[in-house]
Amino acid sequence: MAKGETTKDAILDRALALATQSGLEGLTMGSLAKEVHLSKSGLFAHFQSKEQLQLDVLETAVARFIEMVIAPALREPRGEPRVRALFERWLEWEDAKFLPGGCPFISLANELDDRPGPLRDRLVGYQKDWMQALATAARIAMTEGHFRADLDPGQFAYDLYAIILAYHHFSRLLRDPASEAHARQSFAALLAASRS
Amino acid sequence: MAKGETTKDAILDRALALATQSGLEGLTMGSLAKEVHLSKSGLFAHFQSKEQLQLDVLETAVARFIEMVIAPALREPRGEPRVRALFERWLEWEDAKFLPGGCPFISLANELDDRPGPLRDRLVGYQKDWMQALATAARIAMTEGHFRADLDPGQFAYDLYAIILAYHHFSRLLRDPASEAHARQSFAALLAASRS
Repeated sequence: MAKGETTKDAILDRALALATQSGLEGLTMGSLAKEVHLSKSGLFAHFQSKEQLQLDVLETAVARFIEMVIAPALREPRGEPRVRALFERWLEWEDAKFLPGGCPFISLANELDDRPGPLRDRLVGYQKDWMQALATAARIAMTEGHFRADLDPGQFAYDLYAIILAYHHFSRLLRDPASEAHARQSFAALLAASRS
Repeated sequence: MAKGETTKDAILDRALALATQSGLEGLTMGSLAKEVHLSKSGLFAHFQSKEQLQLDVLETAVARFIEMVIAPALREPRGEPRVRALFERWLEWEDAKFLPGGCPFISLANELDDRPGPLRDRLVGYQKDWMQALATAARIAMTEGHFRADLDPGQFAYDLYAIILAYHHFSRLLRDPASEAHARQSFAALLAASRS
């Protein structure tokens, strides 16, 4: 059982890496089986359908994001230090080696925005959770006196997300070496405008 | 000849609409032929290959963007009014009825960022042109005295693009009715921080 679970986790990590490059629709049982050196029937023992595999890949992405971005940031002091940690970790996430095609949430948003269904609903739910987490981090920085009392936390979350989306766009498409400096400058300006 | 050209333009507009939803890879000669009520051989009379069709669709998107966003903005007074017009038109572009899947440049960036080739090269070229056009608009606003003299025009272009990317992301994926208000608030803050 424990061994089976490990195998499944390893398959899902490989599937997540593939999905960042080919999309979830491009992730077929055949291509994944080849990639992890299993027979297709061996793979079906873990995932009963392509839909289940896709949902499991999305859950894997969320688990990795919590490990790499959210959990370490929550260990930072409340307020601006935690907001900074969220930004730094999120930027690292965008370049993570285990995500060769970049952030799965951004590419899945583009893949799924016109495709209603359980997968899209799950992604939307996670995006809302994440926006609320960012707004909460801003709200804590307000109560700590780091951010001004009339800041709009939802707007802050939107502006922070915008910086990461631009980083994803310009670093991945244009391979622009200035992308990171631009993202850091945008974040510094956002912090400056948010401080009390 | 004139009639043939019109037909080709009409086919390309339909192909562009389809590509915003299914991606350029999902745009097959078969699905397009069905959509425009032509035989596949009738379609091949216009486009010699799928690659040629994809390039033509990208050129069509660029032509529409120039018509809808760039040309009208260039008729506005130099400086901040022109920057505002670029933003307003760009935001309209994101919701244009003839682009049912949203901005083709954003979805193509996600589709092509890991796929080297002439199509990706062409898209990168257009993105660089557009970033330079935005930076130029900011530079003109500096020489007109609307924007401060130490503004970084490249950073301004990045920040403006970030706002549109976030609008695309949140309006399309989350169908969030607050997206437009957030985008406008971000743009107002960017203008305020850029003014002399």
